[in-house]
Amino acid sequence: MATLVLLRHGESEWNALNLFTGWVDVDLTDKGRAEAARGGVLLKEQGVLPDVLYTSLLRRAINTANLALDKADRHWIPVHRDWRLNERHYGALQGLDKAATKEKYGEEQFMAWRRSYDTPPPPIEKGSEFSQDTDPRYADIGGGPLTECLADVVARFVPYFEQTIVPDLAAGKTVMIAAHGNSLRALVKYLDGMSDEDVVGLNIPTGIPLQYDLDADLKPTVPGGVYLDPDAAATGAAAVAAQGTKH
Amino acid sequence: MATLVLLRHGESEWNALNLFTGWVDVDLTDKGRAEAARGGVLLKEQGVLPDVLYTSLLRRAINTANLALDKADRHWIPVHRDWRLNERHYGALQGLDKAATKEKYGEEQFMAWRRSYDTPPPPIEKGSEFSQDTDPRYADIGGGPLTECLADVVARFVPYFEQTIVPDLAAGKTVMIAAHGNSLRALVKYLDGMSDEDVVGLNIPTGIPLQYDLDADLKPTVPGGVYLDPDAAATGAAAVAAQGTKH
Repeated sequence: MATLVLLRHGESEWNALNLFTGWVDVDLTDKGRAEAARGGVLLKEQGVLPDVLYTSLLRRAINTANLALDKADRHWIPVHRDWRLNERHYGALQGLDKAATKEKYGEEQFMAWRRSYDTPPPPIEKGSEFSQDTDPRYADIGGGPLTECLADVVARFVPYFEQTIVPDLAAGKTVMIAAHGNSLRALVKYLDGMSDEDVVGLNIPTGIPLQYDLDADLKPTVPGGVYLDPDAAATGAAAVAAQGTKH
Repeated sequence: MATLVLLRHGESEWNALNLFTGWVDVDLTDKGRAEAARGGVLLKEQGVLPDVLYTSLLRRAINTANLALDKADRHWIPVHRDWRLNERHYGALQGLDKAATKEKYGEEQFMAWRRSYDTPPPPIEKGSEFSQDTDPRYADIGGGPLTECLADVVARFVPYFEQTIVPDLAAGKTVMIAAHGNSLRALVKYLDGMSDEDVVGLNIPTGIPLQYDLDADLKPTVPGGVYLDPDAAATGAAAVAAQGTKH
């Protein structure tokens, strides 16, 4: 049996401003840093001690993991970083205000872009302010995608999980993945065998470790996993669901 | 040609208290964190952009690298951590006050333990307060050494450098090593071909990146390398040399 710990980054500067972020590499807020540290305290208190860390290439996930593992006295474990754990690329929406976007395009289009399984936003223009096409970290993948729907994230993340992360789990290691709302939704969909429809309603709160104990076939022993602070997780998930209603 | 950047961690809690630290996993002070961040600003300003990071397993080096790379916008590069980059194990001196130790044992013995090439301090007692023999991060090396002289550090670090780090340099990567006063002294001795006697007088300041440009044979083009802030480095090296005189 192996343990997988999922950690969504703490509040970022653009979470706080209610902007679509995607691959834009914004930092954590002070609140986000405090959330990350508290996530580490939860790990330590509950004896959930990662043996290896996987992160995206984005600062908010990397710094969340750094802060949490430091608190948990596991700052020294091996680290692997990969773009396949990145947040969903939000295309031309990157940098736009969520509430203004909803106002402009209407509730239906807004929710389709945010939550439908296979509707990507319009592609971002190369060379535009919030594009990553010249970022050196994505040079070996041609600058990366110009937009993604959740199905695209599943298509890039799940094979990486199966090929690279599963061997660590199969070896009995406790694996921590520090990533993003939508890349973790993609993984949870896969782990829990959720339908394309059911994943639409799934919201993952920031900064609260989500523990999956996996059986010999690497299936979750408890569907949906267990948050290390269930009350805070329920409050946090409701807050994520309410995004876009803020004015 | 390849570039190697050496970064000694910023001031630690025990640097500030003037205690022998070795493998005790103390944190940075606020001053140390500021030094690390400034190191990152120097990297960015001078366009010295690491492609890959190597760290010890100790928090003060790990956090120094995290803070510096975040400032340099290189937080996303691959990371390798290994105990072979750790500070010299200070044996039974770990946790002792430097000035009091000098007082008790005399200048000659004190300097032999601190700076001689091949005189290790007495071994630390297993299970004692400042021993690491039950630390999980050293489980696969039997808890690690009980004391080390600088020659021991050379013997563990240089083969790792040659086998693991040199291939990255040979591939043309800019490699950053975030480590410690004595592990970096061991490496500089090797890089610059210093004698056992000459390395005694070598002091490496905290938090200031030291850049070595290496030729096709991986020999330094400038012996001793170039600090990204030479004036601050000279002041810092003098401060290191003066340790033990503080009361």
